[in-house]
Amino acid sequence: MKINTWFGTLETDIVGEILESRLLSKDIRKLALHSLSLRESRSNLPPEGFDLKAAAIKSGFAESPAEYYFLLHEVTLEAAKLQVSSAITPDQRIIQAVEALDDVNETTNALSERLSEWYGGYFPESGLGGEDLALFIVKYGSRENVSSEDPLYSKARNSMGAKLEPADEALIKDFAESVLSLYERRRQIEVYIENSMEQVAPNLKHIAGPMLGARLISLAGSLKKLAEFPSSTIQVIGASKALFKHLRARAPSPKHGIIYSHPLVNTAPWWLRGKVARAVASKLSLAARIDFYSGEKDPSLIEKLEAKVLQIRTLNPRPPQKKQESGAKLKKRRRK
Amino acid sequence: MKINTWFGTLETDIVGEILESRLLSKDIRKLALHSLSLRESRSNLPPEGFDLKAAAIKSGFAESPAEYYFLLHEVTLEAAKLQVSSAITPDQRIIQAVEALDDVNETTNALSERLSEWYGGYFPESGLGGEDLALFIVKYGSRENVSSEDPLYSKARNSMGAKLEPADEALIKDFAESVLSLYERRRQIEVYIENSMEQVAPNLKHIAGPMLGARLISLAGSLKKLAEFPSSTIQVIGASKALFKHLRARAPSPKHGIIYSHPLVNTAPWWLRGKVARAVASKLSLAARIDFYSGEKDPSLIEKLEAKVLQIRTLNPRPPQKKQESGAKLKKRRRK
Repeated sequence: MKINTWFGTLETDIVGEILESRLLSKDIRKLALHSLSLRESRSNLPPEGFDLKAAAIKSGFAESPAEYYFLLHEVTLEAAKLQVSSAITPDQRIIQAVEALDDVNETTNALSERLSEWYGGYFPESGLGGEDLALFIVKYGSRENVSSEDPLYSKARNSMGAKLEPADEALIKDFAESVLSLYERRRQIEVYIENSMEQVAPNLKHIAGPMLGARLISLAGSLKKLAEFPSSTIQVIGASKALFKHLRARAPSPKHGIIYSHPLVNTAPWWLRGKVARAVASKLSLAARIDFYSGEKDPSLIEKLEAKVLQIRTLNPRPPQKKQESGAKLKKRRRK
Repeated sequence: MKINTWFGTLETDIVGEILESRLLSKDIRKLALHSLSLRESRSNLPPEGFDLKAAAIKSGFAESPAEYYFLLHEVTLEAAKLQVSSAITPDQRIIQAVEALDDVNETTNALSERLSEWYGGYFPESGLGGEDLALFIVKYGSRENVSSEDPLYSKARNSMGAKLEPADEALIKDFAESVLSLYERRRQIEVYIENSMEQVAPNLKHIAGPMLGARLISLAGSLKKLAEFPSSTIQVIGASKALFKHLRARAPSPKHGIIYSHPLVNTAPWWLRGKVARAVASKLSLAARIDFYSGEKDPSLIEKLEAKVLQIRTLNPRPPQKKQESGAKLKKRRRK
């Protein structure tokens, strides 16, 4: 009879005597990984009442009960650690990246504005902003250094701005350098999210695009949760304020949450936006489920979605004017 | 008779005939600077009715009325620009630096917190935060790289944290790098403010310290305005909420605004804080006035302030218990 234990595989006869043993080395980490895989497979576990300690000593894995218990303790601890570790799943890492991206975006904007205001006193005519301004400042510092090939040369020469003193120039230049580093971080995190989405949720990425897909996972809390959501929930993720207003009062139900940023939704004419959003949400839900349960990429999803949206557009070429009016009347009556 | 004009100095006889002329070169910028200095000095200006254009042509500065007017136009424009430029005074530059510092502080804190949360999943036991954590991450990346000499070595080896994948490691390391660059900016701006304060407001800096002094100038709007404030205003700068509550309702008047951060104020026992704040504000006001009107450093100010505070402490060694009680009663009565 074959018995799998945390310290190796034993071959026993019918009364439990060990005939043969293949022991693992006393490497705590390897033993922990082995015991975790054992817990998952649950194959050939020791029968009830089987004395593992005695078997370990008899087979020569441990020399004494004390050593056996010591190793068991260490391995259990290590296995617990490994389990905690695996808690950061790839979709959780995407969520962290999305959150970091939001922080970076916010701070980049704040510091960019500050830079703009600050440098504006020295070169108000530059017309630059954001990353372009930061690049300009890092390159030239004072507008007196603008090279004659630069399109801003004559503006810089004739500027009404104040003279930038060397101490201020150094300060602003380094400030602009930090702003640039944040712009760089933004791009880097976006690339990371794109790559991770391709691995973790290729279908969702294909249909939603990497950023919208990542935000959906982030707002849902995990890919698993997103896959479990009904598509009507996915349709309004990110519109919780409007949704609760709808549930609480007589406000209309929101037609779309963050999926509004999907190109098929935001290019749809207003009278189709709800229908298109529903179609997109339904395919997103499907994509999330495929990603979570099988993980295989299905390129036909996007084609089906596009066909569906085309169908919606063909069936409703004109705004439903009568309906719209009666809806407005209805609202008015209710308000009274 | 000597006449100063924007294009040079003329020596004329009694009827206005030019005997001698010292003309400036046709450098627009130099001419503009000259005409600005002339406007300030107002010495030997041309007498009323004196024909400058004719004199310029006669003395050979301009060849034709057209050239004269062209040069005059250019010089006037340049002079206007120079005047706008000088609008960014040194105290305004300090204010800009203070505002930039506030932005940098806020964003550094936000990104530091994000880094802490992010890396916390990979090495929750580090016990590090802020700049130390960022330095640690830039140095090692994954906790597996911690050198055996590092005091955190054993914690890193035994950490419950997840394994940091290479792609995430690169991302977090660069993120930490950006955070460090912001900490660096913070220090740089602080040094700038210190140096500028020494030049612009040495007495204020001496009494308030560079950062409190700079913040007072920033909240007042300029050194001039700060110098014009009565010391009772300086005492409550930065406490506008409490001040308006006091003016509107029956709330007690605020004892101190941002001067609370002054070491003499915040180390004073509670029953002396108002008195000490008043003494500090009065010396700050004096310092701002000396800085604005004479600019000479007076080291005796701080000695006088310290003597005054010592006197306040000596005269009031114990909390005024009776007064306090009656004050509380009074308040109660009023509230009824």
